[in-house]
Amino acid sequence: METDTISAISTPLGEGAIAIVRLSGPEALEYANQMFRGKDLLEVDTHTIHYGKLVDPETDELVEEVMVSVMRAPKTFTREDIVEINCHGGMVSVNRVLELVLAQGARLAEPGEFTKRAFLNGRIDLSQAEAVMDLIRAKTDRAMNVALKQMDGRLSNLIQNLRQQLLETLAQVEVNIDYPEYDDVEEMTNELMIENTKHVHDEIERILQTAKQGKILREGLGTAIVGRPNVGKSSLMNSLVHENKAIVTEIPGTTRDVIEEYVNVRGVPLRLIDTAGIRETEDLVEKIGVERSRQVLQEADLILLVLNYGDELTEEDKKLFEAVHDMDVIVIVNKTDLPQKLDLEELNRVAGDHPLVNTSLIEEKGIDQLEESISDIFFEGDIDTGDMTYVSNVRHVQLLKQAKDALKDATNGMEAGMPIDLVQIDVTRTWELLGEIVGDTVNESLIDQLFSQFCLGK
Amino acid sequence: METDTISAISTPLGEGAIAIVRLSGPEALEYANQMFRGKDLLEVDTHTIHYGKLVDPETDELVEEVMVSVMRAPKTFTREDIVEINCHGGMVSVNRVLELVLAQGARLAEPGEFTKRAFLNGRIDLSQAEAVMDLIRAKTDRAMNVALKQMDGRLSNLIQNLRQQLLETLAQVEVNIDYPEYDDVEEMTNELMIENTKHVHDEIERILQTAKQGKILREGLGTAIVGRPNVGKSSLMNSLVHENKAIVTEIPGTTRDVIEEYVNVRGVPLRLIDTAGIRETEDLVEKIGVERSRQVLQEADLILLVLNYGDELTEEDKKLFEAVHDMDVIVIVNKTDLPQKLDLEELNRVAGDHPLVNTSLIEEKGIDQLEESISDIFFEGDIDTGDMTYVSNVRHVQLLKQAKDALKDATNGMEAGMPIDLVQIDVTRTWELLGEIVGDTVNESLIDQLFSQFCLGK
Repeated sequence: METDTISAISTPLGEGAIAIVRLSGPEALEYANQMFRGKDLLEVDTHTIHYGKLVDPETDELVEEVMVSVMRAPKTFTREDIVEINCHGGMVSVNRVLELVLAQGARLAEPGEFTKRAFLNGRIDLSQAEAVMDLIRAKTDRAMNVALKQMDGRLSNLIQNLRQQLLETLAQVEVNIDYPEYDDVEEMTNELMIENTKHVHDEIERILQTAKQGKILREGLGTAIVGRPNVGKSSLMNSLVHENKAIVTEIPGTTRDVIEEYVNVRGVPLRLIDTAGIRETEDLVEKIGVERSRQVLQEADLILLVLNYGDELTEEDKKLFEAVHDMDVIVIVNKTDLPQKLDLEELNRVAGDHPLVNTSLIEEKGIDQLEESISDIFFEGDIDTGDMTYVSNVRHVQLLKQAKDALKDATNGMEAGMPIDLVQIDVTRTWELLGEIVGDTVNESLIDQLFSQFCLGK
Repeated sequence: METDTISAISTPLGEGAIAIVRLSGPEALEYANQMFRGKDLLEVDTHTIHYGKLVDPETDELVEEVMVSVMRAPKTFTREDIVEINCHGGMVSVNRVLELVLAQGARLAEPGEFTKRAFLNGRIDLSQAEAVMDLIRAKTDRAMNVALKQMDGRLSNLIQNLRQQLLETLAQVEVNIDYPEYDDVEEMTNELMIENTKHVHDEIERILQTAKQGKILREGLGTAIVGRPNVGKSSLMNSLVHENKAIVTEIPGTTRDVIEEYVNVRGVPLRLIDTAGIRETEDLVEKIGVERSRQVLQEADLILLVLNYGDELTEEDKKLFEAVHDMDVIVIVNKTDLPQKLDLEELNRVAGDHPLVNTSLIEEKGIDQLEESISDIFFEGDIDTGDMTYVSNVRHVQLLKQAKDALKDATNGMEAGMPIDLVQIDVTRTWELLGEIVGDTVNESLIDQLFSQFCLGK
């Protein structure tokens, strides 16, 4: 158990009205009190706020005017004493307050260390801790809802429920083996085992079915706009960006080329791929457009293939169709304002099952249908009740898949007449794998690695 | 008096652990309570913190997990009821909470509106309100100290003190005129008037002497590095940037060229001008370097003119000296590791009174002396007690200058035998001008304009 007192800036960096420096640990109150003038923080009630001045206790020099929140263990986020110092949101101000706090003896918190303590002290389980970070990084309302529910323990309950069922099965089997009062004990045991493991197996499969949507909600639907030059790729991109709330995320430490643009289309976050490329190459010679398109396809979940209604289908168009034939594609027939030259029969043949949408971007027509199409592909015809538990985390998906496979092995084994104690091993393994999701059976280095992906101050 | 309830995001935008949505006004508690589940916020004590869930009261759908701080009037920043909702610091999360707050009936706060209310409700005066923004934007510790002291009322006290002296003089003069029991009343009145106005005049002059330093602390010392190509301009820049804490501010909505780089040299914030230009042109042909240097001079407060110790003084060097001869210049003789070719006698003649510093940037020599020189120029030999009240705000400086001029007029008038009631007008005008600094005598449109320069949520 860690027992030192940690501190970090918990608000985003930048200029704003308020910034927060947070302390957590046994010395949090004492350190804060050393610097605070206005009241004795050691004497105040828990969950109260105090106005005062922060001074450097060495020199008694004024450092900031602050509001200090005092929250005593155990009813806090970390279950330790927490002090939050609200100071002015400037770069110098907040860094100065943090430096002063560290000078009192606090240690600079590692990324995610507050949440890690919340986990280690049993306030939340591992899947809830992971949801905290998903929530902060959410790009759409829907993604946030998924994270919110996971944080609220929805996935944890589901998983713990399945683990409980496995545990009870194992216990029952154990009892049957140890007290074989009846003749048909072996048969009963096998039957029970097969029935219960099959039930859990199906439940896991059901959860895994949400994984694709969960991943997309979390990371965005990687969307590539491809097509020959001058068919309207950049117009399409601009329409999508302007009609919807776009979130541009600049990835720190990289050149401006790696800007990610997110567009929220009816709750589906599209992550537009290679937007710079599209903007640049639209006016360039033919070849670059197609070549670049091919590259872009690698990382796409969804292809928007744009054609020109006022032009015949070219060899290049057909090559593009070939390149994407086994992907999720929406075919956009643009420039319907021009006289038709496109052979629709030929197009239908080439396009196969991919949905077609007619647009005239210049006349702002067809965008609604396109958005409908995107939403259809994402939800695959399901009605989104807003009430589902999506698995979105790659780690969770991997563990669920392993758990499913282990159960499959168990069932196959039983059907092949494998001894029950060997089957028990598979079921126990499943129970452990599910435990890793919520953090019941998980090793320290994994925990360290998980929390290190958090942002500072959380 | 404004009586509606306002709300805004008060933390910097971006991803972080915590974000704050703040409400202020008579309905703050009611609006928060409508959305909050966990406790009746209308019943809780002032200055207390409460954990709970935020739901959309229309649908009862969970929106966030939050900590809510309740602070009741009048002991708050705005002297109104304030509620601060601490939610997760993601873009979606915080915007969603704000939207929900607005849906309850709150109005989106204008930039600076919280601070404006603090001013209108008499919690702080105008110069203190302005200091809040300076504090947030401060680039160095020293700049922050200046703002902190101004926020603490140091400048306000100084100004109010001077106004009180003027008021007492005016009252005394009034009494003397109305009750002329003595024969020599006119003489006494004039004498008193001259003595007191002169005292106030000198005080204002003293305050104004800090203005240049104040402005530099606030906005940075615009520093241009000039010199022929290949003398070591970019090495110098890199040394300054790497040896010191550099703050890079990207100005939103502009191209990447307008990046401002601040370097904190012994508490003096240098704003490096045209750093991109220096980086680009260092390797280019001669002409561009000098031509660009000329342009850059326009906006500089300090020139670092770099020469090559291993090279003779060229015509170009001399032209640069001519161009900057009446500015603050530090002459840097770089590359002292090379064999001397520079004629030091000639250099001394050309450099005149400008201080010289020898450096060998490649051997990391001389940077300390350069920093010493910069600090000397800034503090002009004064010992910085850290205890001065600097005027840094352009508006304050303008008003102080006008006040000084008005007093000068008054003194001149009296000496020229102007009637005392005309002189009174000038003195009254001075009293009003000083009042504008603290906001006692100031019109509404000016107030609106001042606060509109604030950041949102403050």
